[in-house]
Amino acid sequence: MNAQSLNVLLYGALVYDLADILKCKLSVPVKLRRLKENAPADEIAAGLREADVVIAIKYRDMPWAPRLALLQIPGAGTDQINMAEIPPRTVICNAYGHDIAAAEYAVLGMLAWSHDFIEAHESFKAGSWRMSGRAGAPIHEELHGKTVGILGLGPIGLKTAQLAKAFGTTVIGCNRTPRAVRFIETVYPLDELKAFLGRCDFLVVSIALTPATTGLIDADAFAAMRPGAVLVNVARGPVIDEDALYQALHTRRIAGAVIDAWYDYPKPDDLTVPPSRFPFHQLPNVIMTPHSSIWTRGMVDRRWSEIAANLDAFANGMPLRNVVRAAAPAGA
Amino acid sequence: MNAQSLNVLLYGALVYDLADILKCKLSVPVKLRRLKENAPADEIAAGLREADVVIAIKYRDMPWAPRLALLQIPGAGTDQINMAEIPPRTVICNAYGHDIAAAEYAVLGMLAWSHDFIEAHESFKAGSWRMSGRAGAPIHEELHGKTVGILGLGPIGLKTAQLAKAFGTTVIGCNRTPRAVRFIETVYPLDELKAFLGRCDFLVVSIALTPATTGLIDADAFAAMRPGAVLVNVARGPVIDEDALYQALHTRRIAGAVIDAWYDYPKPDDLTVPPSRFPFHQLPNVIMTPHSSIWTRGMVDRRWSEIAANLDAFANGMPLRNVVRAAAPAGA
Repeated sequence: MNAQSLNVLLYGALVYDLADILKCKLSVPVKLRRLKENAPADEIAAGLREADVVIAIKYRDMPWAPRLALLQIPGAGTDQINMAEIPPRTVICNAYGHDIAAAEYAVLGMLAWSHDFIEAHESFKAGSWRMSGRAGAPIHEELHGKTVGILGLGPIGLKTAQLAKAFGTTVIGCNRTPRAVRFIETVYPLDELKAFLGRCDFLVVSIALTPATTGLIDADAFAAMRPGAVLVNVARGPVIDEDALYQALHTRRIAGAVIDAWYDYPKPDDLTVPPSRFPFHQLPNVIMTPHSSIWTRGMVDRRWSEIAANLDAFANGMPLRNVVRAAAPAGA
Repeated sequence: MNAQSLNVLLYGALVYDLADILKCKLSVPVKLRRLKENAPADEIAAGLREADVVIAIKYRDMPWAPRLALLQIPGAGTDQINMAEIPPRTVICNAYGHDIAAAEYAVLGMLAWSHDFIEAHESFKAGSWRMSGRAGAPIHEELHGKTVGILGLGPIGLKTAQLAKAFGTTVIGCNRTPRAVRFIETVYPLDELKAFLGRCDFLVVSIALTPATTGLIDADAFAAMRPGAVLVNVARGPVIDEDALYQALHTRRIAGAVIDAWYDYPKPDDLTVPPSRFPFHQLPNVIMTPHSSIWTRGMVDRRWSEIAANLDAFANGMPLRNVVRAAAPAGA
């Protein structure tokens, strides 16, 4: 393949605005095209027909892409990729660089919850000293001394473990493949999930969404948790059963949650989509953010450096990073 | 002195509610009395007349205390104690246990600022995805990679340095007595304050309030700071010139502030006292809390364990901890 003619399609609202950043980081010349999901169907069909490389977080029910040689996912999760419709000769890669941002968010969420930070700020800004210890306020918590459970020991989980440990917490983990990890006192296998959950003051969910993890945290799991426990979700919404989560929070089966990962997302032509069919925004024990945790300047810089390096390597016939599905051998 | 007859006076609204916690922690029997500042003057006079031990954060213009042998300050700061009116034979001790809570707050403040956390929560709770990266939101910051300057390397400053370092920051310090400190790249002496300030992305103020540090951060100091800098005050308000702070934030000379330490405080009979003569609550670039940072369950437990241990030691004639002014020798 001639690098001069590499056609790269940025597909989807999530990557649409990042074309300039990618261009700055690329060494090889490419023809960049970008389309949102709500572009006319014939433009999308034409874009896919010509694309050597597609960069997309979601790839499902797409037009045929006869030249597609590399599908570069601009994120870690492959849960929105329908592998079956990607030509077998296409390499699929994902990308990282978000672990620092997501781990900072998880620690931020635990600290904010412990210190009643948002309520202290909002009430004081409104003129009240009621959250002040000197005004006889309820004494709040600190992160120090708590037990932090990390469900899923990928890059986000490991980084969160390291940061949480610095605060004098006990860090435990639960992972498909149990293994000794620095900073983590005990790593439970997934079939000991309930024993793990029963120890957590904070449960940080950082496990990949797969058919096996969909609904992993269900009503039974909440029943195994401590009444004072707080859940922090920086993974994908559906790892946690939507109904069970709402009920656990509404009935105070657990104390609260810090939620960044949701069940429904806005579309390019509809930014008003509610994040769930339940009114989480009405619950006083929920801190909620719009899947914004990882969107730091540092993440964009690290991730798109990785992606640009992969495109450069691809154009030059060099090995790719973060291959999640290799190309089938020629003739296969 | 007979331990049976030790008269302990808890003086002030700040300690009034903590009598039960102290009782639980004491080994020696004492006669505990408690008074708020707005108690009748004759009750206060009688309380001071009988007191062997006074526990108070503020001691100024007090009636004569002929028996006073120990003034136990339930905090680190001695800035509200008029040493001149404490009998020379009285030992003065302070107390700690708050460094973990204050350092957690300082890191929480830096993280919350970096991640636009409060705005993301408030706008999403109100139904808007506008703070989501996928909705084309402005990309926010992360703490990783920033330079964190710590002004004042007491227990809070050192703990903050350790926590901040875990986030991959460069930590620098500024202190009356420069000394090599683990976690800290460079410690500047106070007369190089401006060189220090010019490097800070975050300035954490954790220096004691003394005549020498009153107004230490003034208009000249703000002029030396970076336009993107954010100030976090977990010390005492007056270390920072009130007028200069408001102007620096209002005119965006610096980017913002996270403020827990103020210029005016509520009184037992007036909880509506504004924290400053300037309307900080109207500034969008201020996160503000009502001196609540250290009021964690862990702080109260650690600090009052220290205080109880000091009272036990005092009753038993054993050495005291955290002596800030020793008793003058007999006959002096």
